Amino acid sequence: MAVYTNVDDDALAGFLEAYDLGTVLSFAGIAEGVENSNYLLRTDRAHYILTLYEKRVDSADLPFFIEVMQVLAESGLNCPLPVTARDGSILQELQGRPCAIFTFLDGTWSRFPNREKCAELGRTLATMHLNCAPVKLRRPNALGPAAWQPLLDSIGPQADIVGDGMHDAIRQRLDSILAAWPTDLPSGVIHADLFPNNVLFIGDRLTGVIDFYFACDDIFAYDLGICLNSWCFEPDGSFNLTKSRAMLRGYQDVRPLSDAECDAIPVLAAGSAMRFFLTRLYDWIHTPPDALVSPKDPMEYWSILRFHQSVSGKAAYGIGL
Amino acid sequence: MAVYTNVDDDALAGFLEAYDLGTVLSFAGIAEGVENSNYLLRTDRAHYILTLYEKRVDSADLPFFIEVMQVLAESGLNCPLPVTARDGSILQELQGRPCAIFTFLDGTWSRFPNREKCAELGRTLATMHLNCAPVKLRRPNALGPAAWQPLLDSIGPQADIVGDGMHDAIRQRLDSILAAWPTDLPSGVIHADLFPNNVLFIGDRLTGVIDFYFACDDIFAYDLGICLNSWCFEPDGSFNLTKSRAMLRGYQDVRPLSDAECDAIPVLAAGSAMRFFLTRLYDWIHTPPDALVSPKDPMEYWSILRFHQSVSGKAAYGIGL
Repeated sequence: MAVYTNVDDDALAGFLEAYDLGTVLSFAGIAEGVENSNYLLRTDRAHYILTLYEKRVDSADLPFFIEVMQVLAESGLNCPLPVTARDGSILQELQGRPCAIFTFLDGTWSRFPNREKCAELGRTLATMHLNCAPVKLRRPNALGPAAWQPLLDSIGPQADIVGDGMHDAIRQRLDSILAAWPTDLPSGVIHADLFPNNVLFIGDRLTGVIDFYFACDDIFAYDLGICLNSWCFEPDGSFNLTKSRAMLRGYQDVRPLSDAECDAIPVLAAGSAMRFFLTRLYDWIHTPPDALVSPKDPMEYWSILRFHQSVSGKAAYGIGL
Repeated sequence: MAVYTNVDDDALAGFLEAYDLGTVLSFAGIAEGVENSNYLLRTDRAHYILTLYEKRVDSADLPFFIEVMQVLAESGLNCPLPVTARDGSILQELQGRPCAIFTFLDGTWSRFPNREKCAELGRTLATMHLNCAPVKLRRPNALGPAAWQPLLDSIGPQADIVGDGMHDAIRQRLDSILAAWPTDLPSGVIHADLFPNNVLFIGDRLTGVIDFYFACDDIFAYDLGICLNSWCFEPDGSFNLTKSRAMLRGYQDVRPLSDAECDAIPVLAAGSAMRFFLTRLYDWIHTPPDALVSPKDPMEYWSILRFHQSVSGKAAYGIGL
């Protein structure tokens, strides 16, 4: 489902004249991601990804995303490196869409990452936070805490579609999160969408981090909350403390957390759960019933949210254990 | 749009234990084809395509398709070679679907193939017809002439959705085609869907023929009719005699056509146009208006059909010129 814009061979050949990539051996749209059109491009020299940015991505944000990937790739992190055209530019246009070419990363993503993969993810996440320091552009988090109340307002009473009284229950939990939201924690560029499908492995070795199109400036430990939610809950909804501890230890091997950061983990993870719950609920309500892309069940994240609001503190995540 | 069945890393790893293909480096669903789910699988040894057969393909037909590809690939033709598992079998099961792995072919398809590509296609089509001789299994053409009247009946008066009086006009043209349909022409295994998107090139060199899932037993020259229709009409609907002549000369360089075959080209090409017109019209009527896959405009093939029924004979295709 990730080819919205078709690129034919003539358009591709004309476009590639701006680059020095060798002879095209194959070119195929790939069914990954939902925001953009992605093509796997193979030449006699290397594999590349050609991304055409569709309307859901604000083209004004593209220079920020490109800079983040460039800074990270040049720091040695396994993330896509934007490929420059002959004239030195990165962002191009094809079929009326902004687009860019990136190096291709080997690896496959893991639906249920094991403990070793969680530890690898923790180390890589901390490395990303540190290595993004040179990024000059800024991008506020458009889906950060300030956006959640307006998002809930836009959903309105239809929230009750997932359960009687849900709109009130969401508002109460949201008030509680916003009242406890930390203000002085270390922040910088975060990935903000580091779900398992955006991390590639060969065996248990992490070989790639992809999809930087939600990257923004926010609290570093909030990024950890996103990863705890998407990596450490089992299919039955239970929280896997072993994986959480491995991820947090991996992170702290590279970037130790302050006491304030550790203490804030429960509310940051709850906030992350609220963010994904609200966007999924919005999509749940607004996706036509016969659309080919099924919306994700928001209630998975409601259950995760309740977990974080029920724990007694950082020990629940394996910190200090 | 060609990933209906998701395959996660655990399922893939378990499945690949049945094969000896090396270490997986990448695995991605590709957005090509509409009948099956196709994944590009790359290992440290080679590139492969993993195809999961969805419900629109009758699994009873799979052994025939596999035999055709195997016979052709072993004859040296550039088509996917089915890969055998450790136990020597080709058809496997994954996620509850029949599936098979094939070698990957380099090349990209051409939306508007030039004269040289048409000549290459002609030579390759003739080679396919000859090289399929050893195929033992048989498959009648489920979308051959005997199917067209029932297909029109199933569309019924709704045919008029594309124009007043169309149902009657289609019936008249269909009657005329069926009355003139040849019975004694050389036949054997044909591809039956050799549109440009099923033929790969690097430069003007043909590097691959794919998608054998309409292959069947039928008149060889009918296969040429399908290619004339899909390769030799310009975007504005005009017929390109130069391309047609190149294709037919390429074909005859490898397998000369008899006089009877040449004389039958207009009606065979008209029949092919009728077949694609009817299936497109059926899809046009039965696709929900908000489906993500847009049905193809049937009227493109109505115009092609009218062309073939208006010509005076084989010279219109460049035969004998």
